[in-house]
Amino acid sequence: MTKCVAIIGGGVIGGGWLARFLLNGWDVKVYDPDPEAERKIDEVLVNARHALPMLYDHALPPEGQLQFCSSVQEAVQGASWIQESVPERLEIKHAVFAEIQAHCRADAVIGSSTSGFKPSELQEGAARPEQIMVTHPFNPVYLLPLIELVPSAATSRTHVEIAKETLTSLGLFPLHVRKEIDAHIADRFLEAVWREGLWLIKDGIATTEEIDNAIRYGFGLRWAQMGLFETYRIAGGEAGMAHFIAQFGPCLSWPWTKLMDVPELTDELTELIAAQSDAQSGDKSIRELERLRDNNLIAMLRALKQQGSAAGALINAHETKLRAPHTDGVPMQTVNRSIPVDWTDYNGHMNEGRYGQIFSDAADAFMIEIGADSDYIAGGNSFFTVETTIKYLNETLAGQQVKVLTKVLMSDGKKVKLFHEMKDEADHILASCEQFMLHVNLTTRKSCPPLAHVQTRMDALALAHSD
Amino acid sequence: MTKCVAIIGGGVIGGGWLARFLLNGWDVKVYDPDPEAERKIDEVLVNARHALPMLYDHALPPEGQLQFCSSVQEAVQGASWIQESVPERLEIKHAVFAEIQAHCRADAVIGSSTSGFKPSELQEGAARPEQIMVTHPFNPVYLLPLIELVPSAATSRTHVEIAKETLTSLGLFPLHVRKEIDAHIADRFLEAVWREGLWLIKDGIATTEEIDNAIRYGFGLRWAQMGLFETYRIAGGEAGMAHFIAQFGPCLSWPWTKLMDVPELTDELTELIAAQSDAQSGDKSIRELERLRDNNLIAMLRALKQQGSAAGALINAHETKLRAPHTDGVPMQTVNRSIPVDWTDYNGHMNEGRYGQIFSDAADAFMIEIGADSDYIAGGNSFFTVETTIKYLNETLAGQQVKVLTKVLMSDGKKVKLFHEMKDEADHILASCEQFMLHVNLTTRKSCPPLAHVQTRMDALALAHSD
Repeated sequence: MTKCVAIIGGGVIGGGWLARFLLNGWDVKVYDPDPEAERKIDEVLVNARHALPMLYDHALPPEGQLQFCSSVQEAVQGASWIQESVPERLEIKHAVFAEIQAHCRADAVIGSSTSGFKPSELQEGAARPEQIMVTHPFNPVYLLPLIELVPSAATSRTHVEIAKETLTSLGLFPLHVRKEIDAHIADRFLEAVWREGLWLIKDGIATTEEIDNAIRYGFGLRWAQMGLFETYRIAGGEAGMAHFIAQFGPCLSWPWTKLMDVPELTDELTELIAAQSDAQSGDKSIRELERLRDNNLIAMLRALKQQGSAAGALINAHETKLRAPHTDGVPMQTVNRSIPVDWTDYNGHMNEGRYGQIFSDAADAFMIEIGADSDYIAGGNSFFTVETTIKYLNETLAGQQVKVLTKVLMSDGKKVKLFHEMKDEADHILASCEQFMLHVNLTTRKSCPPLAHVQTRMDALALAHSD
Repeated sequence: MTKCVAIIGGGVIGGGWLARFLLNGWDVKVYDPDPEAERKIDEVLVNARHALPMLYDHALPPEGQLQFCSSVQEAVQGASWIQESVPERLEIKHAVFAEIQAHCRADAVIGSSTSGFKPSELQEGAARPEQIMVTHPFNPVYLLPLIELVPSAATSRTHVEIAKETLTSLGLFPLHVRKEIDAHIADRFLEAVWREGLWLIKDGIATTEEIDNAIRYGFGLRWAQMGLFETYRIAGGEAGMAHFIAQFGPCLSWPWTKLMDVPELTDELTELIAAQSDAQSGDKSIRELERLRDNNLIAMLRALKQQGSAAGALINAHETKLRAPHTDGVPMQTVNRSIPVDWTDYNGHMNEGRYGQIFSDAADAFMIEIGADSDYIAGGNSFFTVETTIKYLNETLAGQQVKVLTKVLMSDGKKVKLFHEMKDEADHILASCEQFMLHVNLTTRKSCPPLAHVQTRMDALALAHSD
């Protein structure tokens, strides 16, 4: 059954939520009184459709249906998730929750995107406080996995469990914040850094660009994959965290920070920051900056995915749920994916080498299908590629959707020949590959026939594909 | 002439500096009275030799000579750069500077790795304050490009310029801090975040692992490529930074932070943090964590390199200085590089597709050599690969050094056939590739003969390679 979400408030954050759900196959009903809402959501969707599928080496499910509604009532009816992303004023949120709860299902999760309010504050005066919680995302919501999930004591355990399952199924990471506090966890750090940054600018120590460089060429790279404490654990060496604290703890009382005070946001300071930011990035539009940010995030997330580490491990876990069973069609479909930005050359065309990777992926999928899977390899048997011949027939671009169809050309004991064709959505052939493989005993490193169950399946496919 | 650096203090930071210089071809003389220094430096070097070459698509220059010295005097003699990384106590640093200056060249740069002291403090009582400055690196120094370069008013402009040039030539990014303050720029942020983290743990809001997840699944990814202000510029939308500040500025005075106080580092709090850190990462040794961190950083940095963005743009700029001129040997050497960790499968072997990429890179290098370079392509002409046949002869592992030798098999007007062999350092053949290319007019998209100067060079090579 298709799942249905109601998006209440469709700005950058609401639009990001909408895209996450829609691109994961949910039907989406959205309500936002802003007459510009449809245009704004469309802009977010353009970015999200470009970006999110590139995180995965398999196609996402077909998009759900998107429906614009003229009232909260219309949007929330039948929805199993309601995501509120209206302005950060408590009285507005209370009014919206009252309207939501007058019409929504009692078993639905109502998540709030608030970055500051505690769930107990949101629940004040609510008809059913048990279904309300904070689910605070990070921009761009269609790429960053973190969701701070903050229930209050009045939130039901059942709703929290459903929320965690749903968020995980969307490729998100629910960070269960066990004690509610203002601004949850992440924004407390952002606040601290923002404040320190304002002082450095006000005091003329550094410009916005110098501060950004101090972050992105140094600790930003560390934090993107390990965060703060694991990084410092390494700095402490074999002696461990207690040693690190003993060594660096005393610095804390040194006068290294001005955080005790809040700089006054005078017009002068605001203009100074705006002017520095213009000098730093003013040559690019916000759309261009968004695309630059998204492409960088995709490339970094895919790098972590390939390492199986940090946020990349989350993507790998989500991807295992995306794999549709391989059909026994003739020929067999072995790849179905989009071309990510990290696979292209400076001119936007897919790099020659990535054709080889796609066909190698196709062979991997084929082998799993016929029983030569990871258990088979762990048992000491595998197919090694000896030779490939690739014909490049048409250019392939980032964002393009491609599939690979695979046939067995020859199955002769230890010798196997596969033939792959890569096609676009209109079934135009982009490239083909003939791949000659040998079955190998991994212990003796010598070629030998496959085990019987694999051989049988291979022979059957060779026959089926013998047209 | 080989350049010579003196490393005074060879811990994790000094060792990281040492590796940066050594792997960029500098001779290194190191002094550290710790009897364990040689072992510790060797451990850093093992990591650095694994990691740094992987950032580039060309080999680094041959390593310089490494010499362990028994005195500061011996180490600094003749050195054009002296890097001080001794413990963070001002009286120790003053004593070390006095000994350095008694024996070093007056035109040498003396850089201090201090994370807290101002250069004017370091210069107190110095014989030649003009050659002393802060050059504060970030761990791991062999991978992260940021160096905070902080001169005082007494530091000479000439020495600062030399320092900037030298750091850039090592692939580092000198962030010139124009006004000296305690802790420079980056550590002020680290301090703020560390302090906030301690409070969250002390108050039982979050564990070390939850805090790390809040960072690495969210804003850490943003900061690794854009930093703070450019990220917020996007959040402000087309209305710009001033709008963003107007919208989010007021939050600053809300009670979202406890930064006004410093938590007391009681034994209890220290033990709590250490225990949480053990629970989070205790299953891995520090060596394993270092390798994990380095592999993640390599993969992310290479992802940014491919995008030509953020720290990746720095690597690309440095790489252009690494390319040795292509020799006219027979056959021609077209690739010389190490295999990075992001090119391997889960089993540590180079992915099939990357063979294709290496041979594609070899063809690119070959084309530049014969005059079919970016100007030629901009002029509307290019070679397109039509078909490649790759023979996989031996497995290739991450960290392996490989080269590709390229011959012209056929030059027949618009038709060209290249033959590439990839070899390891012992000249064993790992793979070969026959590549059939067509010369194409990019406007008409039809094949046509190359322009005369390219055709002449191609024919000459076909003859030279015709054995």
